Amino acid sequence: MTADRFRFDGQKPCDLSDLPTGAGDAREEKAKYQERTAHNLEEMSRLQNGFRADGREGLVIVLQALDAAGKDSIVKHVMGGLNPQGVTVHSFKQPSAEELSHDFLWRANQALPPRGGIAIFNRSYYEDVLAVQVHDLQTTYRMPPRTTEMGKAEFFRRRYRQIRDYERYLYENGYRVLKLFLNVSKEKQKERFLERIEIPAKNWKFSASDLKERALFDEYAQVIGEVITATATEHCPWYVLPADQKWFTRYLVSELVADALRRSCHEYPTLPEDARARLQECRRQLEEET
Amino acid sequence: MTADRFRFDGQKPCDLSDLPTGAGDAREEKAKYQERTAHNLEEMSRLQNGFRADGREGLVIVLQALDAAGKDSIVKHVMGGLNPQGVTVHSFKQPSAEELSHDFLWRANQALPPRGGIAIFNRSYYEDVLAVQVHDLQTTYRMPPRTTEMGKAEFFRRRYRQIRDYERYLYENGYRVLKLFLNVSKEKQKERFLERIEIPAKNWKFSASDLKERALFDEYAQVIGEVITATATEHCPWYVLPADQKWFTRYLVSELVADALRRSCHEYPTLPEDARARLQECRRQLEEET
Repeated sequence: MTADRFRFDGQKPCDLSDLPTGAGDAREEKAKYQERTAHNLEEMSRLQNGFRADGREGLVIVLQALDAAGKDSIVKHVMGGLNPQGVTVHSFKQPSAEELSHDFLWRANQALPPRGGIAIFNRSYYEDVLAVQVHDLQTTYRMPPRTTEMGKAEFFRRRYRQIRDYERYLYENGYRVLKLFLNVSKEKQKERFLERIEIPAKNWKFSASDLKERALFDEYAQVIGEVITATATEHCPWYVLPADQKWFTRYLVSELVADALRRSCHEYPTLPEDARARLQECRRQLEEET
Repeated sequence: MTADRFRFDGQKPCDLSDLPTGAGDAREEKAKYQERTAHNLEEMSRLQNGFRADGREGLVIVLQALDAAGKDSIVKHVMGGLNPQGVTVHSFKQPSAEELSHDFLWRANQALPPRGGIAIFNRSYYEDVLAVQVHDLQTTYRMPPRTTEMGKAEFFRRRYRQIRDYERYLYENGYRVLKLFLNVSKEKQKERFLERIEIPAKNWKFSASDLKERALFDEYAQVIGEVITATATEHCPWYVLPADQKWFTRYLVSELVADALRRSCHEYPTLPEDARARLQECRRQLEEET
């Protein structure tokens, strides 16, 4: 798989500044990749039928990225290839008062699909170690002293461990968590922001506060590397995907989703003999209708 | 605290056959214990006011027991001392199809109170290592091979670890889990079953299938000891409480709930200076009303 190149599974640390944001050599074969993407979308759809009918495994796709990296576009153009009956998309915004009054994984757990289902997390509980860490939001939480008194670094190290435990638990209970970070360059982000300002139909996607987040681009990159290093594991790896060329990102994501479904149980349940016999009886009844 | 005698926090193994089901010497001072229970109930109620207003911690009270050990009676007579605005009781019955299509902790997580709240679990996720284990129900689950192929003993050892991780996670995120096992003798169970059969108003509490479970009394006792040994920790200990005399069990539970609230944050939030100044302004407005 092409996407294997971008895999982090705990064997090596992740440093975003070392990683490509562009399609590289693949640019010369754009048409070929687009064709393959179309092929993957068909395969995803076909595999999902069996995955839903089988119902032994659930799939959570975590999409994380800085602004304008193309999360929404991936949801629309790649996940759009799936049967929506069997898929939910959850956009994790600033937490509500009810969400803040629970543990940080609570709202993710509420959004967990049944086995046989796919949930796409557009942002996720990873915001609780990313945006929260960059903006020191943990200092504003109403929490007992024992949960915060160990200082910032240790507070987030704990959260990394809590996330690892949670994802291992999910894996051991029939879920796969596919974690995708869309890695956009600072230049490409600027270009896409300018587009959002210039094209009226895209204005709604831009807010002045996006520039405040952009000013923290490098700080985010550093924290993201740390988070990926701390939470990438063999069974719940991260993929840090170049995101400057959308056709290439779409290709990689389509490859990864198809692969996750292929590796998941996706057999149509077969009926036991007596149930099959009853089906024959039902056939007779239908055929004898006058 | 009297209840400390019955505490398991991971320092020693738990063997139910060694543990008292009766009140022992306390029988001679029944009236004194009942008086103390009344006192504890008042204190619980008082502490809960601060606990709710403070909102930094949540409390989960897990009630596990064999049939006729008095779980419902504890909910009514002890938890009844709490302000119901701030308390939810969840009875965990046989899981629904929706619950079975998720991980086993999912429904407990759905039932988690907000911080400042108390949830009473009448049975709990511990059924997933108790009834499930005794009846081999895990063999009927629709789960992928990787989650079950390690064999029964290892399957449940994993669940013990998953429960420990989950409870530690809760503790680190502002929750306390108070785990109570009501330890009834086989003789007392028989006596209470006969009462349920003889007294018409109690008939609804009895079902012929209760005798099938009773036939597994010793097997349950063995598994319960193993589960408590594996999941008792310093911060989320188990209490194995004698349950043959209801007045004594009530006393112990009232002591433990009051203690849990006392150790939790329960300070009335104090307003910052500018908010206090606004209160004075509001007072003036009220007093000037004509």
